Amino acid sequence: MGSSFGHLLRIATWGESHGGGVGVTIDGCPAGMPLSEADIQPDLDRRRPGQSRITTPRDEPDRCEILSGVFEGRTLGTSIAILVRNTDARSSSYEDFRHVYRPGHADYTYQAKYGHRSWQGGGRASAREAIGRVAAGTVAKRILEAAFGARVTAWVQQVHTLTAATGWEGVTPQQVEANMVRCPDPQAAERMIARIEQARDEGDSVGGIVRCVASGIPAGLGDPVFDKLDADLARAMMSIPACKGVEIGSGFGGITMTGREHNDAMYMADGRVRTRTNFAGGILGGISDGEDILVSCAFKPTATIGHPQQTVDDQGNAVTLKARGRHDPCVLPRAVPIVEAMMALVLADHHLRQVGQRGALTPFPG
Amino acid sequence: MGSSFGHLLRIATWGESHGGGVGVTIDGCPAGMPLSEADIQPDLDRRRPGQSRITTPRDEPDRCEILSGVFEGRTLGTSIAILVRNTDARSSSYEDFRHVYRPGHADYTYQAKYGHRSWQGGGRASAREAIGRVAAGTVAKRILEAAFGARVTAWVQQVHTLTAATGWEGVTPQQVEANMVRCPDPQAAERMIARIEQARDEGDSVGGIVRCVASGIPAGLGDPVFDKLDADLARAMMSIPACKGVEIGSGFGGITMTGREHNDAMYMADGRVRTRTNFAGGILGGISDGEDILVSCAFKPTATIGHPQQTVDDQGNAVTLKARGRHDPCVLPRAVPIVEAMMALVLADHHLRQVGQRGALTPFPG
Amino acid sequence: MGSSFGHLLRIATWGESHGGGVGVTIDGCPAGMPLSEADIQPDLDRRRPGQSRITTPRDEPDRCEILSGVFEGRTLGTSIAILVRNTDARSSSYEDFRHVYRPGHADYTYQAKYGHRSWQGGGRASAREAIGRVAAGTVAKRILEAAFGARVTAWVQQVHTLTAATGWEGVTPQQVEANMVRCPDPQAAERMIARIEQARDEGDSVGGIVRCVASGIPAGLGDPVFDKLDADLARAMMSIPACKGVEIGSGFGGITMTGREHNDAMYMADGRVRTRTNFAGGILGGISDGEDILVSCAFKPTATIGHPQQTVDDQGNAVTLKARGRHDPCVLPRAVPIVEAMMALVLADHHLRQVGQRGALTPFPG
Amino acid sequence: MGSSFGHLLRIATWGESHGGGVGVTIDGCPAGMPLSEADIQPDLDRRRPGQSRITTPRDEPDRCEILSGVFEGRTLGTSIAILVRNTDARSSSYEDFRHVYRPGHADYTYQAKYGHRSWQGGGRASAREAIGRVAAGTVAKRILEAAFGARVTAWVQQVHTLTAATGWEGVTPQQVEANMVRCPDPQAAERMIARIEQARDEGDSVGGIVRCVASGIPAGLGDPVFDKLDADLARAMMSIPACKGVEIGSGFGGITMTGREHNDAMYMADGRVRTRTNFAGGILGGISDGEDILVSCAFKPTATIGHPQQTVDDQGNAVTLKARGRHDPCVLPRAVPIVEAMMALVLADHHLRQVGQRGALTPFPG
Repeated sequence: MGSSFGHLLRIATWGESHGGGVGVTIDGCPAGMPLSEADIQPDLDRRRPGQSRITTPRDEPDRCEILSGVFEGRTLGTSIAILVRNTDARSSSYEDFRHVYRPGHADYTYQAKYGHRSWQGGGRASAREAIGRVAAGTVAKRILEAAFGARVTAWVQQVHTLTAATGWEGVTPQQVEANMVRCPDPQAAERMIARIEQARDEGDSVGGIVRCVASGIPAGLGDPVFDKLDADLARAMMSIPACKGVEIGSGFGGITMTGREHNDAMYMADGRVRTRTNFAGGILGGISDGEDILVSCAFKPTATIGHPQQTVDDQGNAVTLKARGRHDPCVLPRAVPIVEAMMALVLADHHLRQVGQRGALTPFPG
Repeated sequence: MGSSFGHLLRIATWGESHGGGVGVTIDGCPAGMPLSEADIQPDLDRRRPGQSRITTPRDEPDRCEILSGVFEGRTLGTSIAILVRNTDARSSSYEDFRHVYRPGHADYTYQAKYGHRSWQGGGRASAREAIGRVAAGTVAKRILEAAFGARVTAWVQQVHTLTAATGWEGVTPQQVEANMVRCPDPQAAERMIARIEQARDEGDSVGGIVRCVASGIPAGLGDPVFDKLDADLARAMMSIPACKGVEIGSGFGGITMTGREHNDAMYMADGRVRTRTNFAGGILGGISDGEDILVSCAFKPTATIGHPQQTVDDQGNAVTLKARGRHDPCVLPRAVPIVEAMMALVLADHHLRQVGQRGALTPFPG
Repeated sequence: MGSSFGHLLRIATWGESHGGGVGVTIDGCPAGMPLSEADIQPDLDRRRPGQSRITTPRDEPDRCEILSGVFEGRTLGTSIAILVRNTDARSSSYEDFRHVYRPGHADYTYQAKYGHRSWQGGGRASAREAIGRVAAGTVAKRILEAAFGARVTAWVQQVHTLTAATGWEGVTPQQVEANMVRCPDPQAAERMIARIEQARDEGDSVGGIVRCVASGIPAGLGDPVFDKLDADLARAMMSIPACKGVEIGSGFGGITMTGREHNDAMYMADGRVRTRTNFAGGILGGISDGEDILVSCAFKPTATIGHPQQTVDDQGNAVTLKARGRHDPCVLPRAVPIVEAMMALVLADHHLRQVGQRGALTPFPG
Repeated sequence: MGSSFGHLLRIATWGESHGGGVGVTIDGCPAGMPLSEADIQPDLDRRRPGQSRITTPRDEPDRCEILSGVFEGRTLGTSIAILVRNTDARSSSYEDFRHVYRPGHADYTYQAKYGHRSWQGGGRASAREAIGRVAAGTVAKRILEAAFGARVTAWVQQVHTLTAATGWEGVTPQQVEANMVRCPDPQAAERMIARIEQARDEGDSVGGIVRCVASGIPAGLGDPVFDKLDADLARAMMSIPACKGVEIGSGFGGITMTGREHNDAMYMADGRVRTRTNFAGGILGGISDGEDILVSCAFKPTATIGHPQQTVDDQGNAVTLKARGRHDPCVLPRAVPIVEAMMALVLADHHLRQVGQRGALTPFPG
């Protein structure tokens, strides 16, 4: 009870790390939108394991199959079901964890909550769950692009103490995809990759910050007072595994500014209201103001490390754990498409609240 | 469409700054719980304007009336409606803003979304809306206290550049309420008050950080993968006016740690699993682990300032705005009970998901 | 947990028969719509007790106050709160029922569920709860009228064994309001009134059928497969106190027809698809087809009767109950505006799903 | 937007008649419950086409695969995904309907709503969608059985004008499954079968009534005032394809009774409150009273008939349609497991609201 997300564009993910597969249903997608597996696969490829030397070696092609909701190449307006089979599921790698609670992981909390858990690769708490999010995110991005020509772009801004010199504006998907760490600052990217490799070699791990920008979003999205756009974005991002912090616009950095510095001065340009700065991150009172939507997410260092750790087993015995299993020394490069997906899902949901199912058909069936 | 919050404990707030009043309905509160206006008023008093020299001079007693859901001093299990009348509503103070969009406020975005807005004191975007949250939060706190003896305590940790020396543990309500800025570090509190007064005197404003701890919460609350406890907390906090960032546990600070440093080692104590540190903030995989729940919220500097600002009016003319109206130079002292309320509401909702309506009756009617 | 209804037009009622009052919040109403207490009062007057000699003598003016969501005579797009105070609340009339479970009433089930109940006049299970529905229904009717010129009209079709000669088409509000039983067939109305008076004089009660038609609704409303228009209507109607059955179009009567007789032949008229007959009741596959929406509701005979009845008290003792309290010998005349309200709320909700919040503004702010 | 159902036990179905398959996700099932494909298949077999000479000859084995949510033979408490592939999907059979709106079907309304539809076998409006419901219903029945030893049993009570002599009590699954029409009155069953065969031979179709009883349900399920148990049941049943009417207990038949006759007298037995009669159908004020829950559903005659019909095509031309395609002359025998499923899903959802996720674990993980 908690696997669905969204109000008018409602997704539900399912699947464990080592079950029959993972997937998603997408309910509320406008009818008539061109969609095929080939549209979705590129984003899944950006998330899939084994894509580079700084990601886990678990080798999953993560091929998706659309099972429903698309007919003759276009969406039907009814529920879209997408399936990705698990293939490289070596449950034996996890045999050591059958009775042991890994620090920083959800083993103990799942056991405490459910009394029965899949101990293979994190089960439902595995980042494989995010496959469904990414697939749904592709659909959401296409809705936004068709409606507004809007773009959603995320990238790695910081790894451990290494920060990119990248500002909020002008980042292109090409810059992001130009290197395996997905940082648009090439010099920083090299240092980040080295830092991640060092962590891996030391049996350790590192975290960092992913930034995400949505441009082209009109004013008016967001439903005060609880379904505010920033509130829904915060929930969306914090629901991503390993995320521990979310900022909109200036975020925690805005604290050391005064109101005179922080208020974004307003002016008219091309017939619409604009702001000179964007400390608000494109959201005022929970409603988009037409500027870029700016979100930052903090990801903790990967919980799986090679170094021995003190923990307990399910009988309450103290245990020294030396992790095996396949994992990423830094989750951020693969988190980038997930952050984009969650941003797009929130925005598309709020777009549909504005225009409704019929309004959403406009770009498509003609 | 967006004024309700929660799944099993569902609240809905209503009301504008200058309408007939503000209020809340609380649906799903367990039956049999003692409740009266006298239980709710103290938290409202902590939020009300005019309570100290560093808050707005608008003088509202904010007296609440319980209209339904309580019979013979105990809750009925059905919807509780609470009403607070607006009394000191001087709409004339806002006449200058009838056609002008104040920077940092929601005037423009409400106009863009709805095409018709209450320009008096922010209307629905006013912090008066939070009265309903605070009243509901009192109910939620009582549910948690009856169930677990749990406590929810928030305080001001930082104002502008001034940080309290307060750690996460051991803060008492008495320490928080000992000064008008609600900072449990008395030396920092004095400096904070001076800083707020300076901002007020300069026609400026400051922001800061509110921290909140829930202690006594058992393991098992939170519903992966979207209704994770941290995700719901992030949404709850980010929905508070002026909040721009949310952290769980280590938050953005955890980024500069490695996995070896950040993973909280597990051990047994008193027959249950504990962690040596609490960088996780009491939540693993979206489920509480039995440690204290730790949340930090960044609040931007108050948007209303006395200094002249560049902006536009609703006809697209450039305007220099010099704000009048009554406001707080720093929202944080009055945000403390709101943060507590949102924390309590999320936790009580997840508690009810665990034990159900019947299970929730246990402490009361029996 | 269960006091809210609707997805994009979301209402929540609150209040008990003998508490401080009853009311409703309406979230998602389009902005800019003219609205005042004077618009709502007429529907409340049609539902209020004491309106005629065949209704309960409890004398309540049921005056409504709009507390929020309306500014300068037009809706704000944010939550509308409406309050009706209870005035003629003679709790002493119910003292005999403090410990006794009345047959056919919810006394026992509320006690079994909540362990604490308001024994005065049914508490939350009182038909006074429907005041909030009726007030919200007025708002929904106005949305439908502004969008489509649509009309929602209900009437009493049957009382006990007495059936009106009225067909589905052409019934006007004037015909319905022409007599106190709200049956558009004047001859049947007279007999129905006599039958109700006979029941009252015998300390007995009668039930019947309320029909409701919505005309002017376009094709396309309804969301398969669970939020079908007919499914939502069935829930809406069955949630009205005393309703025991719901039919769409032919309903149970369609059973004795064959497919050849029951299928509504299609043809073109004025450039749109029409059907020769309307056994479908305006809904195919859960989606409106542009014909009138036809719903019938069965209401049981009023549970409160004057005749002695066998029952038990809350200690498990057998009791002979002779009811006092004020009640209606037949609920149908006062149920008419409630049925209209629920029909309108479902249709307006589905209309908003189609056009969204922005689309819904079209008739209003200009 | 409308493919999900339930609040704490939340299912979502997906799939079209002729796409890759159909399926369901079940979110909120308690952890630790034994579950395998073998548990689900028998109910699917009761619904599958080609099971007898009075059902459609489309031959689908409807084999289910559990893709997630079950580990080592027991449920995990997280989302259960179930897939059934379409195999005998002869889309060519439907080529004639590509541009024609079949009377009594959802062809026109889907086109009007979505502007793009799957014209093969009804697409999403096909009764194949109910496969997901039936699979989820099996899970719900097991939850109810484990919690209360409760049983849910549906049967065919009437076909066209032929009514079974069966009362509400004592019907066994064995009696229901003893004949292909699923009527526990063997004499009536024979006549019903003959009537269905006659309809088929005449290119016609017939409808009827399915009754459903849930026994062993305790008092206290149902959430006034909108999530009343009867309201949720009405929605659940009316969402089944071809259902046009729903009754609880006495339903429309109760209209010709007076209050004295209809009120169920209360008495004590075995320490609990019972009623002498059960015209209420086990529900008072929207809450179960501990008696059997009684529901009747009216199903219209199958819309697909062999006889020529007048209709229009998607260009607005008048067309005489002579249906081909494979279909049932009477849907009722195959609707029986669907009705059971919807009854069980509503009851299990309300049971989980009462006891919560933790409470629901009690019978299982031990």
